[in-house]
Amino acid sequence: MKEFWSDRIRSLTPYTPGEQPKDRQFIKLNTNENPYPPAPGALRAIRDNADASLRLYSDPEASALRRALAEAYGLTPEQVFVGNGSDEVLAFAFQAFFSPGAEIAAPDITYSFYPVYANLFDIRYRTVPLNEDFTVPVERFCGGCDGVVIANPNAPTGMELSQAEIRRILEANPDVAVIVDEAYVDFGAASAVGLIDEYPNLLVVQTFSKSRALAGLRVGFAFGNENLIQALNCVKNSINSYTLDRLALAGAAASVADGDYFAAQCARVIATRERTAEGLRALGFVVYPSKANFIFITHPAVPAKTLFAGLREKGILVRYFDLPRIDNCLRVSIGTDADMDAFLAAAAELTKEG
Amino acid sequence: MKEFWSDRIRSLTPYTPGEQPKDRQFIKLNTNENPYPPAPGALRAIRDNADASLRLYSDPEASALRRALAEAYGLTPEQVFVGNGSDEVLAFAFQAFFSPGAEIAAPDITYSFYPVYANLFDIRYRTVPLNEDFTVPVERFCGGCDGVVIANPNAPTGMELSQAEIRRILEANPDVAVIVDEAYVDFGAASAVGLIDEYPNLLVVQTFSKSRALAGLRVGFAFGNENLIQALNCVKNSINSYTLDRLALAGAAASVADGDYFAAQCARVIATRERTAEGLRALGFVVYPSKANFIFITHPAVPAKTLFAGLREKGILVRYFDLPRIDNCLRVSIGTDADMDAFLAAAAELTKEG
Repeated sequence: MKEFWSDRIRSLTPYTPGEQPKDRQFIKLNTNENPYPPAPGALRAIRDNADASLRLYSDPEASALRRALAEAYGLTPEQVFVGNGSDEVLAFAFQAFFSPGAEIAAPDITYSFYPVYANLFDIRYRTVPLNEDFTVPVERFCGGCDGVVIANPNAPTGMELSQAEIRRILEANPDVAVIVDEAYVDFGAASAVGLIDEYPNLLVVQTFSKSRALAGLRVGFAFGNENLIQALNCVKNSINSYTLDRLALAGAAASVADGDYFAAQCARVIATRERTAEGLRALGFVVYPSKANFIFITHPAVPAKTLFAGLREKGILVRYFDLPRIDNCLRVSIGTDADMDAFLAAAAELTKEG
Repeated sequence: MKEFWSDRIRSLTPYTPGEQPKDRQFIKLNTNENPYPPAPGALRAIRDNADASLRLYSDPEASALRRALAEAYGLTPEQVFVGNGSDEVLAFAFQAFFSPGAEIAAPDITYSFYPVYANLFDIRYRTVPLNEDFTVPVERFCGGCDGVVIANPNAPTGMELSQAEIRRILEANPDVAVIVDEAYVDFGAASAVGLIDEYPNLLVVQTFSKSRALAGLRVGFAFGNENLIQALNCVKNSINSYTLDRLALAGAAASVADGDYFAAQCARVIATRERTAEGLRALGFVVYPSKANFIFITHPAVPAKTLFAGLREKGILVRYFDLPRIDNCLRVSIGTDADMDAFLAAAAELTKEG
């Protein structure tokens, strides 16, 4: 029954987030959360702000947080936008830069929220097939469309595009916006943030949910030329003046302030990722080269769907996408060393020859 | 410069929220915040949840909070939707229930965010003039449009529509959605929540920002028939799976649990409102009958704009709308008794005859 539903939503297929189990304790390697806690200063800042001041609205301009991000990344606050998770930032960006009926290009295998936004906002979504080895065919993103969306590193493959390749895409699309979604960039990839002065068409989107271990605080951000940031503000201020609450603003700013903690936790995840990849290769898995806090894997003998079910049985949740070309792969978030030892032991058992 | 801006946002005029002063201490009667702190249990719940679990995503279904609201209002969780402030809930509702090109009806004087949503989502916005005394001409909302949006009590007048009038509008519009925005309902007006089983076209929207003193936590909610709530979820899950962070979910649920505190604080605000209205009438002000946590006033001799500036000079912020028909009125939020004594003293001085 869809009585009262608007035309725009009758045919929508919303995004499906990874399972958030409530009843059972799993080793949770399915939603790319950070296995380590957020910076201690972030938790302190939240507790310090949990007081009577919550009766007052938060700063609609998020000035302190934008200033903190600008300082940390060598930008001006006018080049920074913040929102309620990078998903909201991306949704605003689609509305801000892509007109109804316009056609944007994105890889066929990438973050599956992009086509959902396109559908909701009446944007045509052209998928460009990745190469067989899941690398991006850069030449096919060079012109002929009204916008580009690229995740770098890509999801769910974890594979990185080089800065030279990003530059090539930016230069081939001078008149349209190019969104580079860097949700996972802090785990070893190079960020395009240094290019925003050079390319007025570049919007870089990042998040506190992965490398900063604050998925539960819902803070995402974007870097770009002032003109692009103004467009995002125009959308935001036409929907919700105060998208970030006082606690999220305070916690996120404190997290940015602790650069050492941030660097150390990222390094730990990277080390565990490399060790896990090695262990999996020893078990016969193909492991795609990842610069993210997850790995994308496939096994020549045991189907991914079987592995997924077997792991779940053993109390380990990973992500399986029942989609063309990747339905024999699993995306596995990097947990603690203990988590990954348990995962490797389970994977060994499940791939042991009969 | 609007290079790269989409067609949909080039001509937008975003909403302007009330001033949030940063540099100077004002008596802040301009954004309808609650003068009293949130329920103590809400602050405790937030502090208790400011821990390592923030590394994990929040519950995308907000189950615990929806259950708490359902219990408090005698509904099922399937009849409850929650979002990042009632502004986000309203924006989702406009997308969910009004098709591009459809025409919706709203009073000419009401919450000024409604026409902004309509503009962004390509919905035609027909304004129905309020009567001279700012009452709603109910008969003009009875059919002939593709949707209705009514704030009850209305903003910025504070005036209430009776339940009989709400019923009349619902019955005259059986095939289109009727949104009743009850942001201020807890300060003495009757809620339409009891009508949702009877009217499948009714969506009631409320917020934690006013009566629950949690403007800085950003939580709004909607009650309606399951079918309407599913439509809102469809929009939400096409934009942002996790609109509420873990702290907001915990704090809001704890706030709902403390019904006694809630009732007591609402009663305090109502008592102060009535006392303030009396004081203003004694000074010659016209005070419209308010069921909100603000009053809408005008003075026969001193222009509202002059009063606004004079009050600001004296450290008191109120809201002035430079809009047709109401540009000689002020909206004054109800603060503490001490706040309102200061306001009354300042108003007396500013309206004293030469």
